[in-house]
Amino acid sequence: MHQDIGEQPEVYAGLLSNQAAQIAAVAARISELKPRSIVFTARGTSDHAALYGTYLSEIRLGIPASLASPSVMSVYGGTPNYAGSLVVGVSQSGGSPDLTAVLRAASKSGATTLAITNNPDSPLAETADLHIDVAAGHERAVAATKTYTAELLALLMLIEGIRTGTGTLAAPEQELLAQLPDLASQALENSVAKELAERYRFAQKLITTGRGYAYPTARETALKLMETSYVPALAFSGADLLHGPLAMADSAVPVLAIVGSGPGGHAMREVLTRLDERRADIVTIGPHDLPGQSARMSSPDVDERVAAMLDILPLQELAMHIAIARGENPDAPRGLKKITETY
Amino acid sequence: MHQDIGEQPEVYAGLLSNQAAQIAAVAARISELKPRSIVFTARGTSDHAALYGTYLSEIRLGIPASLASPSVMSVYGGTPNYAGSLVVGVSQSGGSPDLTAVLRAASKSGATTLAITNNPDSPLAETADLHIDVAAGHERAVAATKTYTAELLALLMLIEGIRTGTGTLAAPEQELLAQLPDLASQALENSVAKELAERYRFAQKLITTGRGYAYPTARETALKLMETSYVPALAFSGADLLHGPLAMADSAVPVLAIVGSGPGGHAMREVLTRLDERRADIVTIGPHDLPGQSARMSSPDVDERVAAMLDILPLQELAMHIAIARGENPDAPRGLKKITETY
Repeated sequence: MHQDIGEQPEVYAGLLSNQAAQIAAVAARISELKPRSIVFTARGTSDHAALYGTYLSEIRLGIPASLASPSVMSVYGGTPNYAGSLVVGVSQSGGSPDLTAVLRAASKSGATTLAITNNPDSPLAETADLHIDVAAGHERAVAATKTYTAELLALLMLIEGIRTGTGTLAAPEQELLAQLPDLASQALENSVAKELAERYRFAQKLITTGRGYAYPTARETALKLMETSYVPALAFSGADLLHGPLAMADSAVPVLAIVGSGPGGHAMREVLTRLDERRADIVTIGPHDLPGQSARMSSPDVDERVAAMLDILPLQELAMHIAIARGENPDAPRGLKKITETY
Repeated sequence: MHQDIGEQPEVYAGLLSNQAAQIAAVAARISELKPRSIVFTARGTSDHAALYGTYLSEIRLGIPASLASPSVMSVYGGTPNYAGSLVVGVSQSGGSPDLTAVLRAASKSGATTLAITNNPDSPLAETADLHIDVAAGHERAVAATKTYTAELLALLMLIEGIRTGTGTLAAPEQELLAQLPDLASQALENSVAKELAERYRFAQKLITTGRGYAYPTARETALKLMETSYVPALAFSGADLLHGPLAMADSAVPVLAIVGSGPGGHAMREVLTRLDERRADIVTIGPHDLPGQSARMSSPDVDERVAAMLDILPLQELAMHIAIARGENPDAPRGLKKITETY
């Protein structure tokens, strides 16, 4: 897991150079199709990448986006009419039968289908009309890390490529992404995850929270903690936290709050105030110290779309270090396999 | 909260008799419009009713459905193009500004908007083109119970009314729903929630799980537990549980699994096996004893669409009784108000 995490700067660099043409071609094709909606289908970690994709699609393209529940088709035999839509399966392995079933059914109803995977020979990739290979290389640990962030970057390149219409990124996005591999290396070098793991060594539970582009980071952090450290971790969008779960917060509940300097981070300020009133122990992840925090994991002051690919890096390390501190093996969590097949 | 919970059979009877014409008129109107998608927007408990609505829309109507993230519009100023879609705000109070903002933006982009609330004079109801009043009466406790199940029933009547095209329910659904108030009374009379609360008196955390129509029940149960008993409760669809969080399960993790006798319940069998392998303590909610369970909350053997309105009743009581056993006041959870305003 340590090696997988450490390779993320390279994976970013590789995607930006080697996969750019492939992604631009897919983006140009989708741009011509002008889909009326973009429907993602994914499980586990990839579902959080898909969630990031929904924010990008709606905010950057103005195209309504959603996450499909595979069970509608695989369990209930439902047949949603996806004519004119783009249906995107996101999966590291491309091996889960329920996602392939969704793409097949969607295609039958008139959708264009796209698979984003780390395995071009997978059933999902072979079923889809279009395919993006995130080319993250072999992932050693069961808990996905570099394939997650590779999916995020592929989605950002795809959506921004659709936005320009030509598939190629506009100048601001090119500049933004050119810095990504270096920023990722710095984020890993400066990480205080190992020290912070001591803080949570005996935590019985954790809350993770963020809004907008940072919400997938909150969700993915919670999943990594559950998978590797076996800590129950509850992820909420900042707004949903205020609609009920806030009551659970007190001084025994540690909170990891992703608070960047963009609109999503700004909208988290009220959430921090309310958590502080409940005397929760708050660690922020972001570029600035904030009232109520008891510690901060520093992250670069960049556009929130890119922050999603940086903030998660020390959080992946945090999950790994808590697992190690507890005597667990983060590479091979109990009860899990690398490829999960669900129906 | 006890009174609110106890009123649910009456609320069902009231909706079926007094609100049927209103809902049928809205359903007939929507049927004419033939929306190309149905987009729900909601927070907290109502978000779980909305989730139930997405399953109904896709399975029963074949219309793609989704849950919108209000932050796309309210935080990022995104403008998804909802022309030709139905956008449905679900809210007990109808008072949260972010939902009203979503309906306003959706309307501007060409959507038809519908509000489902317990307050016809609310900003959400006044903003929407169409309104359904769930008429659940004044809800005393902060934690929503009868407004949740009233929203579920209103959604079922709406979707089944759209399905027939006339707004009126088909004969099988009429028969199914005619039994609902009595089944709800029986579910409350036979409830073993108080006894079961003893089991969880000292639980540090809980997992709730279900698939398809039972997944909203799992989510809503978790929220009730967090709001009233302050127990961290993690809700997963059965399939998502297998994609990672399963690793967290062991003999110290109690699981509440909703396992009906329909397709969603059937798809849970493998999940129970895997949880049993991890020696989790499983309490099932359903009509039949199952391998691996250590106890069962009995619920009637009915269609899963209706089971969603019955299974939740003893689970609401369970949350209330755990709160009481712990010396908390379930009527007024710390840090919460009845109307939560988020932006």
